[in-house]
Amino acid sequence: MNNKFTRIEIVMADVKEKIATVIYMPESRLPSIRAAAKDYGFSPSTVVEAYERLQTEGIIYSRPGAGFYVAETTAPLSLTDIAPKIDRVVDPLWVSRQSLEPPDGALKPGCGWLPADWLFEVGMRRGLRNVAKADASIISEYATPLGLLALRQLLTRRMAGLSINAEPSQIILTDSGTQAIDLIFRFLLTPGDTVVVDDPCYFNFRAQLLAHRVKVVGVPYTPNGPDVDAFAAILDEHKPRLYITNAAIHNPTGATLSPATAYRVLQLAQAAGLYIIEDDIFADFEVKPAARLAALDGLSRVFYIGSFSKTLSASLRCGYIAAPIEWVGSLVDLKIATGFGGSQLAAAVVFSALTDSGYRKHMNDIHTRLASARTHTLPRLAKLGIVPWLLPQAGMFLWCRLPENNNATELANRCLSKGVVLAPGNVFSQSDNAEKFMRFNVAQMSHSKIFEVLAQSMT
Amino acid sequence: MNNKFTRIEIVMADVKEKIATVIYMPESRLPSIRAAAKDYGFSPSTVVEAYERLQTEGIIYSRPGAGFYVAETTAPLSLTDIAPKIDRVVDPLWVSRQSLEPPDGALKPGCGWLPADWLFEVGMRRGLRNVAKADASIISEYATPLGLLALRQLLTRRMAGLSINAEPSQIILTDSGTQAIDLIFRFLLTPGDTVVVDDPCYFNFRAQLLAHRVKVVGVPYTPNGPDVDAFAAILDEHKPRLYITNAAIHNPTGATLSPATAYRVLQLAQAAGLYIIEDDIFADFEVKPAARLAALDGLSRVFYIGSFSKTLSASLRCGYIAAPIEWVGSLVDLKIATGFGGSQLAAAVVFSALTDSGYRKHMNDIHTRLASARTHTLPRLAKLGIVPWLLPQAGMFLWCRLPENNNATELANRCLSKGVVLAPGNVFSQSDNAEKFMRFNVAQMSHSKIFEVLAQSMT
Repeated sequence: MNNKFTRIEIVMADVKEKIATVIYMPESRLPSIRAAAKDYGFSPSTVVEAYERLQTEGIIYSRPGAGFYVAETTAPLSLTDIAPKIDRVVDPLWVSRQSLEPPDGALKPGCGWLPADWLFEVGMRRGLRNVAKADASIISEYATPLGLLALRQLLTRRMAGLSINAEPSQIILTDSGTQAIDLIFRFLLTPGDTVVVDDPCYFNFRAQLLAHRVKVVGVPYTPNGPDVDAFAAILDEHKPRLYITNAAIHNPTGATLSPATAYRVLQLAQAAGLYIIEDDIFADFEVKPAARLAALDGLSRVFYIGSFSKTLSASLRCGYIAAPIEWVGSLVDLKIATGFGGSQLAAAVVFSALTDSGYRKHMNDIHTRLASARTHTLPRLAKLGIVPWLLPQAGMFLWCRLPENNNATELANRCLSKGVVLAPGNVFSQSDNAEKFMRFNVAQMSHSKIFEVLAQSMT
Repeated sequence: MNNKFTRIEIVMADVKEKIATVIYMPESRLPSIRAAAKDYGFSPSTVVEAYERLQTEGIIYSRPGAGFYVAETTAPLSLTDIAPKIDRVVDPLWVSRQSLEPPDGALKPGCGWLPADWLFEVGMRRGLRNVAKADASIISEYATPLGLLALRQLLTRRMAGLSINAEPSQIILTDSGTQAIDLIFRFLLTPGDTVVVDDPCYFNFRAQLLAHRVKVVGVPYTPNGPDVDAFAAILDEHKPRLYITNAAIHNPTGATLSPATAYRVLQLAQAAGLYIIEDDIFADFEVKPAARLAALDGLSRVFYIGSFSKTLSASLRCGYIAAPIEWVGSLVDLKIATGFGGSQLAAAVVFSALTDSGYRKHMNDIHTRLASARTHTLPRLAKLGIVPWLLPQAGMFLWCRLPENNNATELANRCLSKGVVLAPGNVFSQSDNAEKFMRFNVAQMSHSKIFEVLAQSMT
C-alpha cells in the first residue's frame, strides 16, 4: 500500500511507529537530518519537511542547535495511529468493527463465527437454568484464582484426548480466549520485543500486538504450517521472543499443521529460546485431529489457549490457558491484578453445556452442516472465478484468490456499501501481500444476495 | 521496610525495578560504578558487588573496558520481582491471594466484599432464569462494541441521579471494574509514566500499576480527600499523567471527598493536563451522596468507572467506563483488540437484577445491616485498643490504628496461621507508612473467633 504515500508521509509514519513502540523514548533525540536521510534513502529536504510536520503535530520538538526530540507527553494509545501506514480499510480491526456492529440487515460472509442459530442455544438455556439453581457460592462469590475446578478438570480430560498432558493446577480460566492471549502477551513481552505471526494470520493477533507496542514479523504460511526455512531465518535475524499461531484449523487459510512441521518449529524454538502461544479455539471443529505443538512440547515453552465462543456461545465469555507449570503463579498474579477474579457463573454455564448430553450431537451436526455449506459455496464462488487456496478438511473458512484485476480491499469497500461485510486479505497479512485474497465463512453464505453483490462489485 | 535490606540489595532492587519499568532499556549501558556510587551515596565497592550479583543472575552483563549493560532477554513479567523491595507479606496482591483462596474454614475480616449471603442472590437467580428465556441474540451472539444498550441506558439514568451527565454512547461495558481501569491504563499510560494514587489506596490499584511498569507516587489522604497542597506539589515535581481515586466511599479509609477538595483537585488537574480515573464501585452503599469529580468535570478529563461485584454478585463479571466522548472510539478499539467482545449474557443478568423490584429494598437492607455491624464491631475493637481513624458514614470498611508496639504485617501473619485473613496497612500504602494500621470489613466480623485470635496475637 506504500505507493499511495509520499516520501514525507513514510518518514512521518515511521517516526510515529517508533515512538508508539517506544523504540524512540520520550525526550530522546531523533536521528539527525543527515543520518535519517541516509537511512531512508531520501533527500535531507524530505526528512526536514517530515520532522517539521511532526513538530506541528506536537509529536516532536526542536532544541535550537541540538536537533529534534520526542515530546514528553505522547497522546493516548490509538491503535490506528500506531499503524498509520495501514490504510483505514485494512487496519486489522476493520473486520471486527464491521462484523460486531454491522449496518442494519447486512450479511456477514467476512465474519469469523457461526450464525447464532447454529450455536448450542438449547444447551446454553439449559445451562443458565441449571446455574440459576446452583450453590450460593457459584451465584455470588469471586472465583478462586485459577477458576472453577470442575471445568479445569474437564479441560484436563479434553486435552488428554489430544495427547496434551495438562494438570488442572496448570489451567487458568480467563474471561475469553482473547484475554488469555493478552495475559500471556503482558507476561512475556516488553515494548520493543519482536513477535512472529503467520502471514496470513487471525487479524486480531495483529491488533492485539499493536496494543503491546511490539514489533511484528510475519512468517509465510504453507498448507502444512509455517514455512520452516523462513521461520529459521526470522529467528536468526530478528531474535523474536514469541510466536503465536493457531492449532487445529488455521485462521484464515483452513490449513492444518503437519507433524513434521510441528517438530521442526519446536526444535527451532527450543534452540532460540522462543516461546509459543498455540490458540486452539477451533479444536472442536476438527474431524481428524491434527498435530498439536502443546502435545509434542509437553507444555514447556508452549502456552496452549482456547475458548468456547465458536461452539457454545459468543455471548458468554470464558477462555483458558494451559501454561508451563513454572509460570502459573505469575500469570495468576497478573490475572488478579488486571481483572481481579474470573466469572464463576460463566464457568459453571460452560461446564453445564459441555457436559450436556446433547453437546456431542450438536458438534456432529455442525461438522455436517459445515461440510454441506462448503460443498454449496465452492461452486458458487468458482462461477465468479474465486478459487480456494486449499480445500480445508474442516472449519468454516475458505481462503480464496480473487480473479485478476480485483483488489480485495476495494472489493470489500464496494460490497460494504451494498450491505455485505467481507474480510479482505490484507487485514490478515503482516506484509500486506494478500490484496488478491479474501476470507469467506461458508456458514454465513447461504444467502444468494452475497453472490449477486460480489458479481456486481468485481471488475 | 528498607532497613531489613543491605545496601547491596538496595542497589540490586533499584536496578531491577528500573529494568522492569523500562527506565533502563534492554542493551543499554548502566551508570558507571563511580556515578552510581555517588547517586546512591554508597561506596563504589557496594555498587561493584551489586552489579556482580546482578550479572550472576543474568540480568546484566559486562563488556570488558566498557562497563555493564542490561541483558537483552529479560525474564517474563513478575509482579513480585518488580517490587522486590516490598516484603512478600505486604506485596499488594497478598490480601487478594489470601482472600480469594483462603485456608479451609478461614475467617476473612480483611477481605473487600460482603459475605455471599448478603448479596442479591434471589435477584441473581431470577435474572439467570429471565435470561435463559431471552432472545437467541442475547444467548449466543457477541455483544456490540459498546455493549448491551439497555444496560447503558440504565447507567445513564443512574449517573444522572449523581449529577453525572453521560450519554449511553459514551458508556463502554467491560468484563469488570478492574478491567475497566486496565483499559484506561493501557490507553493513557506508557512505561515510565508517573501515576498518583491515594496513600492509603485500594491495594489492587498498586498491583495493577506495577503490571503497567509505571512509577507510582502516593498523595496523603485526609478525611476530606487527598491533601490538596501535597497534590499540588506532586503535580509540580513529578508531572504525573494520571490520578486514580475512589468516589463515594474511599477504600480503605471510608472517608468521603468534600466538594471543596473535589473542586481544587480538578482545578489542579486541569492546569497540569492530568487525567483522572474515579472508581465509583461503592456508589450504591452511600446513604448521603458525596461530591463526584465526574459530575463537576462533565467527563472531560475524568474517566468514571464502576461495577456490580460489591452489590449484586462477584461471580458475574461486568463493569463500565463513562469516558470523555473523544476517547470512546479508541477505548473501544482497545477493548476489541484485547478482549474481543463483552458478555451480553452478563450484561443482561445485571440489567435484570438492577431493575428487579427487590433491588432497592436489598440495598436498603444492606445499609441497615452495615450500620448495625459497624455499631457492634467498634466496641469489640476498642476493647483491644484498636481505634478507627474516622467513623465512616457508610460502607463496610473501618481503617483502624493498632495499639503501640503492634506491627500490622506481623499481626496479619500471626493471625493467618490461626485461620484469620487480615488486611495489613502497608498493602494499601505506597510509602509503606501504614504499618500501624489495619483495614477491617465489618460485614465479615460477626464471628467471636476473630476477636479472640486478634487478642491472642497482639503484643
